Amino acid sequence: MQVVVPFAAETPKTRLESVLSPVERSTVARAMLTDVVSALVETGHEPTVLSTASLADANGPGLSSLPAAVTVDDRPLTEAVNARLPTTVGETVAVVMADLALATPTALERLFSADADVVIAPGRGGGTNALVVRHPSFRVDYHGASYLDHVRIAREVGASCVSIDSFRLSTDIDEPGDLVEVLLHGDGQAAATLEELGFGLEIDEGRVAVSRSGGVRRQ
Amino acid sequence: MQVVVPFAAETPKTRLESVLSPVERSTVARAMLTDVVSALVETGHEPTVLSTASLADANGPGLSSLPAAVTVDDRPLTEAVNARLPTTVGETVAVVMADLALATPTALERLFSADADVVIAPGRGGGTNALVVRHPSFRVDYHGASYLDHVRIAREVGASCVSIDSFRLSTDIDEPGDLVEVLLHGDGQAAATLEELGFGLEIDEGRVAVSRSGGVRRQ
Repeated sequence: MQVVVPFAAETPKTRLESVLSPVERSTVARAMLTDVVSALVETGHEPTVLSTASLADANGPGLSSLPAAVTVDDRPLTEAVNARLPTTVGETVAVVMADLALATPTALERLFSADADVVIAPGRGGGTNALVVRHPSFRVDYHGASYLDHVRIAREVGASCVSIDSFRLSTDIDEPGDLVEVLLHGDGQAAATLEELGFGLEIDEGRVAVSRSGGVRRQ
Repeated sequence: MQVVVPFAAETPKTRLESVLSPVERSTVARAMLTDVVSALVETGHEPTVLSTASLADANGPGLSSLPAAVTVDDRPLTEAVNARLPTTVGETVAVVMADLALATPTALERLFSADADVVIAPGRGGGTNALVVRHPSFRVDYHGASYLDHVRIAREVGASCVSIDSFRLSTDIDEPGDLVEVLLHGDGQAAATLEELGFGLEIDEGRVAVSRSGGVRRQ
């Protein structure tokens, strides 16, 4: 099974701009990428990072220790992923997003071992956070409510399709409120990076929030 | 195993007040309660609804067809639940929140079959959405970041503790943004009720939102 991890190297995580500078967003995005790749390696796979730009050149710290090959493909996400999906029966390709900071080997194993032509780990808000494709006609479309689209596309091409019920894989880190989950449940580089940047839990009634203090906002 | 479903009968779902009238909030809350109880019954258990008031008297539609016994306990949630937790070795009590509109028998079975003294299904934002307790000294504290508190309390009383990785059980329906998940993944009374009230998916780039149209806002 090939495992592909798409990564937007140049302007990552723009929806975190209210709480993180561009360089910080890049640092956090690369920490999450490292956590995802590390969890994948622990499952025994050799992931390939599909990056929109060279990770050495792009804005942000280098990733010399990333345990994965990096392939640069500057096409839009949907196109770049579709170019790597199976074209013949018997091939399997998994696509795992780079911002699943809570991904664990156990959660990923559940994804990989589910028995269907198309296995989807839905993200909150209708996204597709991770995907296993074993059907040569299935293609992705990441625009809009991609979860619903992918279920529909699977049906249209005659591929069996199941969803994986995982909180960890449903949690993509896009918005400031998502950082809470990294601080609550993460134990990798992303959590450590957020703590270094001064983020902490703000505990009140209702859901927990994040606050930031002490961290120098670096440009 | 006893299964308890706490339910705030009188002023349910106040954080939905920007999109639903009081009577509508009560209707949606009772639809979610019905979905949760139905999923529990499908797992072969006989849940007890622990309601803050009689469901016949409280503001909102009656629930004559609810397949569960209803016990009224007007104490605060933490106190009411603690009064029902195991006091002797060998007892097991599960506590499942009434607003887990995506709960399925499969997800609940995973919760019930996990092997530990305390099994927690964390909610988004650090809550405790469902819980199985098999230790006579464990007690709950639902204030603040209850997930972290429950992990700590289990450790303090010497109880083994595991978390269940379930998107469905992590999704409590508290805020307008949560309604998206009901429309995307729900197939019970809660989803049908929201559709009747005019809610639909608003599909754009990024996460899917909800919009409301056609529904008459009833008081």
